[in-house]
Amino acid sequence: MKKHQNLFRDLQEDFRKMKKNLLVAQSGGPTAAINATLAGVIKQAIKEEQIDQVYGACYGIQGVLEQKFVNLTEKVDTEEKLEKLKRTPAAALGSCRFKLNDIKEDDSQYQEIVDILHKMNIGYFVYIGGNDSMDTVAKLSAYCKEKGVEDIKVIGGPKTIDNDLCGIDHCPGFGSAAKYISTVFCELEQEITVYEPKNVIIVEMMGRHAGWLTAAAALAEGKNGNVPYLVYLEEKPFSLDRFIDDVKEKLASTNAVLVAVSEGVHDTEGRFLCEQEESRELDVFGHTKLSGTGKILEEAVRAKIGCKVRSIELNLLQRCAGHILSKTDIEESGNLGANAVKLAVAGESGLMSSLTRVSDAPYTVEYSGVDIREVANKEKKIPVEWINEAGNGVKEELITYLTPLVQGEVSSIYENGMPSYLLLK
Amino acid sequence: MKKHQNLFRDLQEDFRKMKKNLLVAQSGGPTAAINATLAGVIKQAIKEEQIDQVYGACYGIQGVLEQKFVNLTEKVDTEEKLEKLKRTPAAALGSCRFKLNDIKEDDSQYQEIVDILHKMNIGYFVYIGGNDSMDTVAKLSAYCKEKGVEDIKVIGGPKTIDNDLCGIDHCPGFGSAAKYISTVFCELEQEITVYEPKNVIIVEMMGRHAGWLTAAAALAEGKNGNVPYLVYLEEKPFSLDRFIDDVKEKLASTNAVLVAVSEGVHDTEGRFLCEQEESRELDVFGHTKLSGTGKILEEAVRAKIGCKVRSIELNLLQRCAGHILSKTDIEESGNLGANAVKLAVAGESGLMSSLTRVSDAPYTVEYSGVDIREVANKEKKIPVEWINEAGNGVKEELITYLTPLVQGEVSSIYENGMPSYLLLK
Repeated sequence: MKKHQNLFRDLQEDFRKMKKNLLVAQSGGPTAAINATLAGVIKQAIKEEQIDQVYGACYGIQGVLEQKFVNLTEKVDTEEKLEKLKRTPAAALGSCRFKLNDIKEDDSQYQEIVDILHKMNIGYFVYIGGNDSMDTVAKLSAYCKEKGVEDIKVIGGPKTIDNDLCGIDHCPGFGSAAKYISTVFCELEQEITVYEPKNVIIVEMMGRHAGWLTAAAALAEGKNGNVPYLVYLEEKPFSLDRFIDDVKEKLASTNAVLVAVSEGVHDTEGRFLCEQEESRELDVFGHTKLSGTGKILEEAVRAKIGCKVRSIELNLLQRCAGHILSKTDIEESGNLGANAVKLAVAGESGLMSSLTRVSDAPYTVEYSGVDIREVANKEKKIPVEWINEAGNGVKEELITYLTPLVQGEVSSIYENGMPSYLLLK
Repeated sequence: MKKHQNLFRDLQEDFRKMKKNLLVAQSGGPTAAINATLAGVIKQAIKEEQIDQVYGACYGIQGVLEQKFVNLTEKVDTEEKLEKLKRTPAAALGSCRFKLNDIKEDDSQYQEIVDILHKMNIGYFVYIGGNDSMDTVAKLSAYCKEKGVEDIKVIGGPKTIDNDLCGIDHCPGFGSAAKYISTVFCELEQEITVYEPKNVIIVEMMGRHAGWLTAAAALAEGKNGNVPYLVYLEEKPFSLDRFIDDVKEKLASTNAVLVAVSEGVHDTEGRFLCEQEESRELDVFGHTKLSGTGKILEEAVRAKIGCKVRSIELNLLQRCAGHILSKTDIEESGNLGANAVKLAVAGESGLMSSLTRVSDAPYTVEYSGVDIREVANKEKKIPVEWINEAGNGVKEELITYLTPLVQGEVSSIYENGMPSYLLLK
């Protein structure tokens, strides 16, 4: 009898050893959908027989090194909490901007991470983030392969409002930011047509190296009126003089013009707008000295056209607006999280969870994994053939690409008039 | 028989003469709820037996003088359109910033308006707007009384995101703007706690003469975390040095501080922040020259504390955010519009449609009319006893006042992923 008891205990122990824990962390800039991916990871991990506990590291890879862990199996233990997490903006586990050492110069940090993961019986590590974070995934998975660490699978979960990751049709978080931006443009179109006198509103969007967010403004054009839009993406060279001509031309036949501009527009030589000579010239008018791209354009319109003009910087609002999310984006973000877990459990490592667009109408996607080296440290820009010749608007191809990504609405969960979020840290 | 026919025709004619048309117009700055008031006016006017057609003047009183009218009985002829109008931001009829002549110097404009209204058989004129618009209502109704024009009743419909009208507990439009602002603060609180290093976010709100909008930020404090807020209202003198001390003190015990500031904060002598010597001093650091209040504070934190800091100007977004409205505000705005019609039909003139708060819990209001002269050209500020001694936060009385105004959620109506509005002009 005693012998049998021991055997049973050994079997239990063997079974426990077979099960591994999963660790998930978030990195890079916040988005309104990154917690939907986290929710997808948790939901799938709980389902997987091979996975025991789900842990979260607070503040990204830095939190792994500092061993700041929370038990997510305990913290997110109901469907209601999962739903609340899905609709919580920013990064519930916290984030970091932390660069691991160059692996060729000093690999001790990598071994430190592996030791910590081993100590916690982590067999699966999902790192959700953008470009830099995928670099971390690439390095860590490469290190594990090189050192023969076969019991830790490292998978990347994509995330960025900038939509500039390679190896994926579009990035989780982008759809919600795009929906926020196009919604704001619909609203500003009502605002700008309230008064009769000539009026220009300039809105500056984030994205230093790709104009996807700015392009989303174009989704609103013609939907609730006939105000002309001017859309300047950083994929085409920008000239302040041509901009003024564009505005003048529009104002010749209408009273209101909406301008969408990427923060990173630059001239043919790559100089950002604030570094261009024409924008410096404006100072002689004695106006307030310039800061952002939108402000420079505002001052230029004031000085050279003289009509009513206002600039708006969407700033952080465009990446944390949990009160108006794209349903498509939130669902896909969750699915990509779940897919990351499935890849890890299937024994894959060094991949990013990805999706491919199968068709525009009906809009369908397929989930897969791409080699992380095809993603890390690359940037996907808008194809220039999707931008008009004049460089002040977008072509139908871009609208076709964007439209499915903003479909459906999900909002925050409200309690007593205020949004209510799930806090994990 | 012929005699009878004539009699019938005469009766019909008498009956038609008894019925009058209603004219409604909108004025002043846009809000997200002014069209809910317009919808309330239309809905009630259609119900009233004494009212024949409902007309709208485009671009406020200027549109009346220019006879730019639309027939709203025809344009808004279904419940579905009324619902869409309720959720359309800005002013669907257009607005103006037009000051009528001083009645003592030249009253010809007033007679011109009366002649136009008579020509169109207008018996009821509802003018929706803020302070300046109520001045127009006061002058026009006074003119009618003085000249014995008894067949035109003029009623004001309140509207302003600034919440600074006298004669009413709170202003339509304010609740939705307050909900937007407190929601944004909930979101920024998630955003600011994503990274560990010390971090300050400063948000500048509209309202040159009253701090109600800025105060709304305080509704978010403690709801989704424990980030300390600093709230600066224009009702208390502002000092840049004290502000820096406040931020330093908070940062001594926490990593993140959220600052809400009214655009019009000023020192004890009434000088706006940008006119104060301390803020000019900042230039010696060689930073970008300053523009708005938020930017000045951002530069001050950067120069004197040196931590991560960002300023956000909510700009037009706070007054046209139709994608997140207060249900309470939208309902009350509609009721105030309906109440304006009821007052006019009851033979009143020279009143503003108003509401009184009967109780905080359960929150109940009563609708009434107040003498327009008690409203026009006055400003309601936040009682200083609702602000803390240090002038950097609000007291419970202010929270109690604000809380019912942001209850419930109404969003835009979406079609194919984009908001869909009712256009009237």
